[in-house]
Amino acid sequence: MTANSFDLPIDLLRSRQNVKWTKYGRDVLPAWVAEMDFAIAHPIRRTLERSIADQDYGYPDRPGGGGDAYLATAFQSRMKDRFNWDIDTSLVQPLADLVQGTFSAILAMSDPGDGVILQLPAYPPFHEAIHSTDRVLVPLMMRDDGQRHVMDAAELARHAAAPRTKMILLCNPQNPTGRVFGRDELEAIGRAAIENDLIILSDEIHADLIYGDAVHIPIATISPEIAARTITINSPTKSFNIPGLRCGVMYFGSAALRERFHKRVPKRVLGSPGILGIDATVAAWNDGQPWLDDVVTHLQAMRDKVFATIASEMPQIRARAPEGTYLGWLDCSQLPLAGSAFDFFHDRAKIAFSAGEAFDPTGAKFVRFNFATSGRIIDQILGRMVDAVKQSNAVRPRA
Amino acid sequence: MTANSFDLPIDLLRSRQNVKWTKYGRDVLPAWVAEMDFAIAHPIRRTLERSIADQDYGYPDRPGGGGDAYLATAFQSRMKDRFNWDIDTSLVQPLADLVQGTFSAILAMSDPGDGVILQLPAYPPFHEAIHSTDRVLVPLMMRDDGQRHVMDAAELARHAAAPRTKMILLCNPQNPTGRVFGRDELEAIGRAAIENDLIILSDEIHADLIYGDAVHIPIATISPEIAARTITINSPTKSFNIPGLRCGVMYFGSAALRERFHKRVPKRVLGSPGILGIDATVAAWNDGQPWLDDVVTHLQAMRDKVFATIASEMPQIRARAPEGTYLGWLDCSQLPLAGSAFDFFHDRAKIAFSAGEAFDPTGAKFVRFNFATSGRIIDQILGRMVDAVKQSNAVRPRA
Repeated sequence: MTANSFDLPIDLLRSRQNVKWTKYGRDVLPAWVAEMDFAIAHPIRRTLERSIADQDYGYPDRPGGGGDAYLATAFQSRMKDRFNWDIDTSLVQPLADLVQGTFSAILAMSDPGDGVILQLPAYPPFHEAIHSTDRVLVPLMMRDDGQRHVMDAAELARHAAAPRTKMILLCNPQNPTGRVFGRDELEAIGRAAIENDLIILSDEIHADLIYGDAVHIPIATISPEIAARTITINSPTKSFNIPGLRCGVMYFGSAALRERFHKRVPKRVLGSPGILGIDATVAAWNDGQPWLDDVVTHLQAMRDKVFATIASEMPQIRARAPEGTYLGWLDCSQLPLAGSAFDFFHDRAKIAFSAGEAFDPTGAKFVRFNFATSGRIIDQILGRMVDAVKQSNAVRPRA
Repeated sequence: MTANSFDLPIDLLRSRQNVKWTKYGRDVLPAWVAEMDFAIAHPIRRTLERSIADQDYGYPDRPGGGGDAYLATAFQSRMKDRFNWDIDTSLVQPLADLVQGTFSAILAMSDPGDGVILQLPAYPPFHEAIHSTDRVLVPLMMRDDGQRHVMDAAELARHAAAPRTKMILLCNPQNPTGRVFGRDELEAIGRAAIENDLIILSDEIHADLIYGDAVHIPIATISPEIAARTITINSPTKSFNIPGLRCGVMYFGSAALRERFHKRVPKRVLGSPGILGIDATVAAWNDGQPWLDDVVTHLQAMRDKVFATIASEMPQIRARAPEGTYLGWLDCSQLPLAGSAFDFFHDRAKIAFSAGEAFDPTGAKFVRFNFATSGRIIDQILGRMVDAVKQSNAVRPRA
């Protein structure tokens, strides 16, 4: 495995003020929280270094106006370049993060007691956003059909038609299954939304991380009717690895949707991202693609290695190589587990995955595997996994 | 006038991406938006340089937990050190800025149609926060009594007792008059709030910038009864000159107040400051006081020079030296103005002050003067002012 220019040495990773590498013991390899162990793209580094050198932390002046206009224009050209999607900058709302967008959209677009469809397994704050606002989580299971994780169309239609259902939370590419939904699947969601007057909240923050033949389609590009009821969330925090800088956008598919949103959640309640987050985002979107191309090539190689090794060396783990994201969803229910799959790998392999039960209450026998690290660390993680699985089989044969 | 170590050369000021120095023509000296023309404190520079060098933009691990806990602990020790105020870190809410805190507090603590008392003149977003949420602005004029700007106690009592009044927005030190309210004045506000069951929102972001014998008293320290109905907003953005980094805090004077707030505005709707903003804030509060002491000494000298020059050279301008803030409120109604005071100084003196009418609809004959710059630039501004005032008197004698 050759090294990449963006690999970082493990002693630097461990010495930073970063929860991925500090939460667990020094003997544990982290493969949990969704960030990458890579150096930052040079355009981002340069813009931040310039601000630091100039001590330029005052009220910002940027092309097109202040920080918000600068961010909206960069989002517009990014969506055009990547997805041939024409967006209107006046419908862009800056955000600190996906979580802020999710909470505010649920508050603005539904009432307590209303149903919100959520694909399961799902990123934990989606669960929290529904429960803590007293909405009702309507689960739509993503089931492994032997090839990939899919929704059941009849279940979607039934949930969408329920009288209290008001919203669908779509995560595309999906965290943690790595599904990149096809046009037919997105059309089915769009139809269900239109027929039942639902709002779609589409988290597309993994849209830059797509492998092989998969294609990311923003659901708002499918038709104007779908766009008019869709709030899309995007951000460079995953693909350019800058979650701590807290910057993203929410895009309203129509002016009416924006007005409806701001009636309940005034714009200025959302605050503003810091200027360094905005500058980093614009640099990433405008000038970061060559770096990202290299990173995606590497991630695809890591994906292929991880899922080939699981298939050949650990066939008891049921898993599908993701079409997008740097995350894999591993069904470990066929391993001889005493407790959770997280505990098994933490205790026996000294690997910290994300615990499955955080994504699905019934998911304790699953883990989420973040494979966004160097080939060297991936080899160590896979070696530890294989050893732990083999030893467990030797000690306690499968039932 | 000797130079300070934190003065920045005018060519650097003009070359940065900063609205203070770019909004108006290159022949205009800016004395408007509330930021300072000074180099940043070394502890802030060091913490930002470290993050940039380590490319440390992942999910943060900081002493005490994540970024929010780190920020709350620094706020706690800052309030203890400066004001002997014991605060509870569980009642601290991070904010992007004062404006986010104001909008969210008004939404959480009042209903459309309710009255919100606002001292006038006032920072423009306070007006906007009241009007755009369909609350009613109840004006409490700050009147120049020949010594300083004061509220009328009877007017306060009458407004507070009006049936629809629900909140008082206090700005202390007051922007733009520079008043630092005394204990008796704060007690009067507290009494009015208790007697009429009002919530106090106290903007104290200028609390670090106090001159001479003036003392800043956080209103929540006056009594537990006042604290229980007070939301205090603080931030290092003014005193340490980092508004672009977007970080501040909101402090709930009781757990009941926090619960009431979050019932309408869930915590995660507010987002989170970026980690570089949090790190800069903690560095400022924990280690920035020596820098701030030097800055305040300089600002006091600038204040003295500005208001002495106005008194001796431009007696037609009625003004009071502020007790706090680096802002002065100049009544220019005795000048022979054809239009607004802003236009007069912009057109004739090539100085951009803040226009008075943004602070008070009846304030077009006033400007706000930001004197947070070097002695050299202050001398130029005063020279231009004196020339313009003298010429205007020569051409058009006072009525």
